Amino acid sequence: MSSSVSLRVRLPVLVLVLEVVILALFAVFVTYDDNANAKLQNNQTNPMDNSLYRDYPYFADVQVMIFVGFGCLLAFFRYYGFSGMVFNFLTATFSIQWAILMQGFFQFYIDGKIHLGVINLLNAEFACAVVLISFGAVIGKTSPVQLLVMALLEVPIFAVTEWAVLKYIRINDAGGSILIHLFACYFGLGVTFVLYRPCLNKGHPKETTSYQSDILCVLGTLFLWVFWPSFNSALTIKGDDQHRAILHTFIGLSSSTMTAFALSAVFNKRGKLTMADVQNVTLAGGVTVGASVDMMISPAAAYALGIMGCTACFFGYRYLTPFMARRLRIQDQCGIHNLHGLTGLISSTAGICAILLATEETYGPSMYQIFSHRAPPEGDPKLLELQKLIPGLKPGLGRTAQEQALYQVAAIFATIAASTVGGLITGLVMNLSCMASPPDEGCFDDEIFFDVPSNFERLDDSKITINYEENEKEKISYDTKLAELSQRGSYSK
Amino acid sequence: MSSSVSLRVRLPVLVLVLEVVILALFAVFVTYDDNANAKLQNNQTNPMDNSLYRDYPYFADVQVMIFVGFGCLLAFFRYYGFSGMVFNFLTATFSIQWAILMQGFFQFYIDGKIHLGVINLLNAEFACAVVLISFGAVIGKTSPVQLLVMALLEVPIFAVTEWAVLKYIRINDAGGSILIHLFACYFGLGVTFVLYRPCLNKGHPKETTSYQSDILCVLGTLFLWVFWPSFNSALTIKGDDQHRAILHTFIGLSSSTMTAFALSAVFNKRGKLTMADVQNVTLAGGVTVGASVDMMISPAAAYALGIMGCTACFFGYRYLTPFMARRLRIQDQCGIHNLHGLTGLISSTAGICAILLATEETYGPSMYQIFSHRAPPEGDPKLLELQKLIPGLKPGLGRTAQEQALYQVAAIFATIAASTVGGLITGLVMNLSCMASPPDEGCFDDEIFFDVPSNFERLDDSKITINYEENEKEKISYDTKLAELSQRGSYSK
Amino acid sequence: MSSSVSLRVRLPVLVLVLEVVILALFAVFVTYDDNANAKLQNNQTNPMDNSLYRDYPYFADVQVMIFVGFGCLLAFFRYYGFSGMVFNFLTATFSIQWAILMQGFFQFYIDGKIHLGVINLLNAEFACAVVLISFGAVIGKTSPVQLLVMALLEVPIFAVTEWAVLKYIRINDAGGSILIHLFACYFGLGVTFVLYRPCLNKGHPKETTSYQSDILCVLGTLFLWVFWPSFNSALTIKGDDQHRAILHTFIGLSSSTMTAFALSAVFNKRGKLTMADVQNVTLAGGVTVGASVDMMISPAAAYALGIMGCTACFFGYRYLTPFMARRLRIQDQCGIHNLHGLTGLISSTAGICAILLATEETYGPSMYQIFSHRAPPEGDPKLLELQKLIPGLKPGLGRTAQEQALYQVAAIFATIAASTVGGLITGLVMNLSCMASPPDEGCFDDEIFFDVPSNFERLDDSKITINYEENEKEKISYDTKLAELSQRGSYSK
Repeated sequence: MSSSVSLRVRLPVLVLVLEVVILALFAVFVTYDDNANAKLQNNQTNPMDNSLYRDYPYFADVQVMIFVGFGCLLAFFRYYGFSGMVFNFLTATFSIQWAILMQGFFQFYIDGKIHLGVINLLNAEFACAVVLISFGAVIGKTSPVQLLVMALLEVPIFAVTEWAVLKYIRINDAGGSILIHLFACYFGLGVTFVLYRPCLNKGHPKETTSYQSDILCVLGTLFLWVFWPSFNSALTIKGDDQHRAILHTFIGLSSSTMTAFALSAVFNKRGKLTMADVQNVTLAGGVTVGASVDMMISPAAAYALGIMGCTACFFGYRYLTPFMARRLRIQDQCGIHNLHGLTGLISSTAGICAILLATEETYGPSMYQIFSHRAPPEGDPKLLELQKLIPGLKPGLGRTAQEQALYQVAAIFATIAASTVGGLITGLVMNLSCMASPPDEGCFDDEIFFDVPSNFERLDDSKITINYEENEKEKISYDTKLAELSQRGSYSK
Repeated sequence: MSSSVSLRVRLPVLVLVLEVVILALFAVFVTYDDNANAKLQNNQTNPMDNSLYRDYPYFADVQVMIFVGFGCLLAFFRYYGFSGMVFNFLTATFSIQWAILMQGFFQFYIDGKIHLGVINLLNAEFACAVVLISFGAVIGKTSPVQLLVMALLEVPIFAVTEWAVLKYIRINDAGGSILIHLFACYFGLGVTFVLYRPCLNKGHPKETTSYQSDILCVLGTLFLWVFWPSFNSALTIKGDDQHRAILHTFIGLSSSTMTAFALSAVFNKRGKLTMADVQNVTLAGGVTVGASVDMMISPAAAYALGIMGCTACFFGYRYLTPFMARRLRIQDQCGIHNLHGLTGLISSTAGICAILLATEETYGPSMYQIFSHRAPPEGDPKLLELQKLIPGLKPGLGRTAQEQALYQVAAIFATIAASTVGGLITGLVMNLSCMASPPDEGCFDDEIFFDVPSNFERLDDSKITINYEENEKEKISYDTKLAELSQRGSYSK
Repeated sequence: MSSSVSLRVRLPVLVLVLEVVILALFAVFVTYDDNANAKLQNNQTNPMDNSLYRDYPYFADVQVMIFVGFGCLLAFFRYYGFSGMVFNFLTATFSIQWAILMQGFFQFYIDGKIHLGVINLLNAEFACAVVLISFGAVIGKTSPVQLLVMALLEVPIFAVTEWAVLKYIRINDAGGSILIHLFACYFGLGVTFVLYRPCLNKGHPKETTSYQSDILCVLGTLFLWVFWPSFNSALTIKGDDQHRAILHTFIGLSSSTMTAFALSAVFNKRGKLTMADVQNVTLAGGVTVGASVDMMISPAAAYALGIMGCTACFFGYRYLTPFMARRLRIQDQCGIHNLHGLTGLISSTAGICAILLATEETYGPSMYQIFSHRAPPEGDPKLLELQKLIPGLKPGLGRTAQEQALYQVAAIFATIAASTVGGLITGLVMNLSCMASPPDEGCFDDEIFFDVPSNFERLDDSKITINYEENEKEKISYDTKLAELSQRGSYSK
């Protein structure tokens, strides 16, 4: 076991190569954004108008989500806390660096240079969130080398998709339900499909939580919950749009949390609460309000969306995840298809409804700011008229609501297609033999990749093998066991 | 034991009813605040002037306090970490939703609609803090159903009291010492008086901490400590008032923390530190500066208030809490009477002194902005003169300092009366048999309401019963034991 | 053991004296800053222009770093989690109070009064960070009394050094590489040199981590990582300077984190990751970009600095720390010389290079704002010309780049000298017999100073003594053992 998973050569070589490449690209292509460039400062500049003060608070909040929130959330396995938290740290750090460059080439590239400001970092964090969500599908059965390779491929595929969708299809998706959650979900499912391990379907003996790891995971949930309004509103238009985004996210999370507790109790045989529900299903509302988060959907609609998303997510964990693992060879470790896929689809649908229902009566002239592609095109006299009411309104494409709705549908399918194909290809690369992939018995085990302290609990290896063989023999009791596991929330976690 | 505490029907039914009611009320009554309304945007609007940017940073800080700070703080029991953290999550989520509506009807109701903005959420969080403080009195002996019912009743009672005190008595209480801390404390004591369990006075075998839970609890304390300045200043007038509020809170907490360490060591027989003091008594200063937090009391006075509040709080834990449990049938589990009641009273008194000592010499004309009820009434020529110096100064009631002081006293008594009565009634409702109240032996035990992981430690049930009977027999050693317990900080925690 | 380390009299007496002194000094010397003074408010004042709104977000972020970040980071020992976290809390609280006064006399003293605003608190937090870094060198072998005494002496020595360097040598050091990191490091090394304990060189049996404490420590690392950009940019000039500071810190931390993982794997015999590296070495980049953090060094240079600092830090942990302990009697418990000393020196050197390379071509006229001492002196006609381009530009000293570089060098030596001498003297005071210094066998043990819960693990005392004697006998195996320990990351931690 030891030599095939040793990180001694593989990880340093990979990191060194990546660092040299990134450093070279930074040196050649990256310069400062105008807001970070000393040379452009003059007697017209008011320092407090610097874009830093608009973007940094949201950047900092999302940082907490990425590093602390995800870090704690992914440390939920009993013997895999180091790995969950630390691989998240490594993967996130690399993803952001890489996304600065990849998104930079597509979105911040002017005169042969990527112009770097906090706004790029903020965008890169969203690309990073995409990678971390996909990570959730394969946590426990991947090495840090594999995770870096996944990020290496996922970030550019995401950057291209994002750019193509935003530039050519042009959609409304302030909270990233389509581009972030659906992309991340189907990419992760593609990867995990290729990395399929039959034995994991039978429940790995280390695939369990401890009292301490469950508490740590709830802490991660709480950090995500608290800062999710910043996540969903970070890239909206400033002013009332961002204000609504924060209100809707908070409301959606609230109703989703209440619903999660109710469903958890009602579907537990002994009428108790299941920690896996508290840790995951409570968050469904944050995704579900995403696509329409900045629109005038009304607070009640946000509340209803939270309930709907939570319900779909809960039943997804209960029925869909085990089904996908057994029948479709898709082992979705953290259930990202429930928390990001199903909710993302609901959210996208809600977004389309909101687009179809949007009228100038409700939004006033600023409708053409939120639904920017519906604004009259350059030269249209209505544009001039509107620009008097909303100074700085940019010309749009003059789309009707129905047209915009169709483009949203196109974006959904395009994103799912691109991410699935990208995930499958990435999975194939991750499956190469040099990737230090842990053996089956070493899954969900910190000791494969970490020096562990003396009080690290170990499962007897012989025990594992026995349990294993038993599973092989008792193919009949297979489905029962799975159902049981998912009941206990330990698999579907 | 199992059927009487099963949440399978009770919790989902209650949550479902609440959600339907809230959704209906949202649909009928809640609309967007002007700052979140797209329709009101026009060429006069500067997006960065949106109230969001004034309120959201404080909202986010208080969110961290409510969900992470309180969550960790209440997870201090060894066998009750899931419950402490997760019931806090559920109760807080529901309380905020409910408070948005209840406070909305009293404070944000215009033309038949509640106008929703981040400022309402911020206010709702304070109502939520009230509920969570009261929760501290009954933690360990209540079911989530009982906690939701408590929130269901406490939030409207608080909203009415708050509205009545602010509208009719009109007081200065920027940090909420009277309306938040005193109300929450006496409400909680009222509830716990009704929920009295004689056996708990003898020290429950599960009423203990672990090494891990103590550390988690300190983490909660640190989050509360760090963001308390935001809590105390969130609703002050912007500018120098808020600046002072932050300074005073920080100073009060600092001196209170130093004092807590000194007292902890001097009253420990072996000259060691007691974690319960570090976890609770250090925070006393934050409450104690509350009522005068935005006034010109001088930094030295804030420092002295921190020391005084901390001292009262410390001796409260040591002597008053055991006394109240034994003699008055008031079992105050987390000692909220010390951390919020005694300190709240000191704070209110200090606020009255600050009001009596306030002069135009110290405050300049802005005195009439801070002490808005002392401003000259509409039509008074002095008002016009002041409005030249302080544009936007609102007409007041022309009260003298003495009059205002008397109103403050009236508010203190009114708040205590309303909260005590409210708490008693709420306790009676919570005592109904359908509330899934845990049996005595199931108090302070996660297993009653949670599926627990396999490494969850269990106390032998037979052991518990024995210990129990012994207690019954040894009525003589009773007081000694209590004193001992409070010495060890394990009861008074 | 018990009476000599009892805190019962010592700690309360010390705290009481300190509180009385601080309260008296507050009462006599501290008044409100103009931005916190109600009297200065008038019809010219826009409340949202209050300095609070510029300073408080950074203050709050640094608060999280100080109390939560450092608190968790220092709780990495298995039997010393209470002490690490709680002594950090006490020491930090006192240091800030004391620094408000000490820095106040030097930097905020006008007309016989210290003018208090959030900006002073922010400065005081940096002084506090200095004390906490030095604490890292002696953690585990000091009592809270000793730590308070250390803070009592370190803060004024720091305040004098800071004032002298800034006022007379006048340097560029936005991220505090010289004044914060180098000062803290050499002060700490001075203290630990005096507090030398031969037995600790052989590896203390309690000097180890646990699975839980390692995770807690990573959590601390993550909080420091996330908010470090705020730390490094808090005191820069607002606008593009602060924007660059945030970008550079983020980039430096990112490249440093990647590098730390690579080095950790390559130098581990079994090709695994070492938690001590993840916990400490990842942060090196934050210090390394410090001295040039606000300059136009280019993003690529920040990336390279992160890699360099991390590499130096890693090899410092591996080779230098054991060497210093054995040969120089300097036991650097947390390896602050690696994380703050070596990186601080690299950073200072990089700062000097950046100063030498700075041209008006790159910076435009705002060069004289960043390198304020290079601005033309009062009366120089070039100053008037520049002031047209950069309104509010203050007259400087007309230094050339080479002159400024020499002053930087002078500041480095002066700071190291002052801190080393200060540390040695402070160490002598801390070594006095009344300081409750823990005995050798009580090092790294919470039980000396805390009432611990019943599940606190204990090492058998007899075991410790035996292990001890063996060490004494086997002087030959000494170096081998140390190397082994540092391999395991348990000493060098």
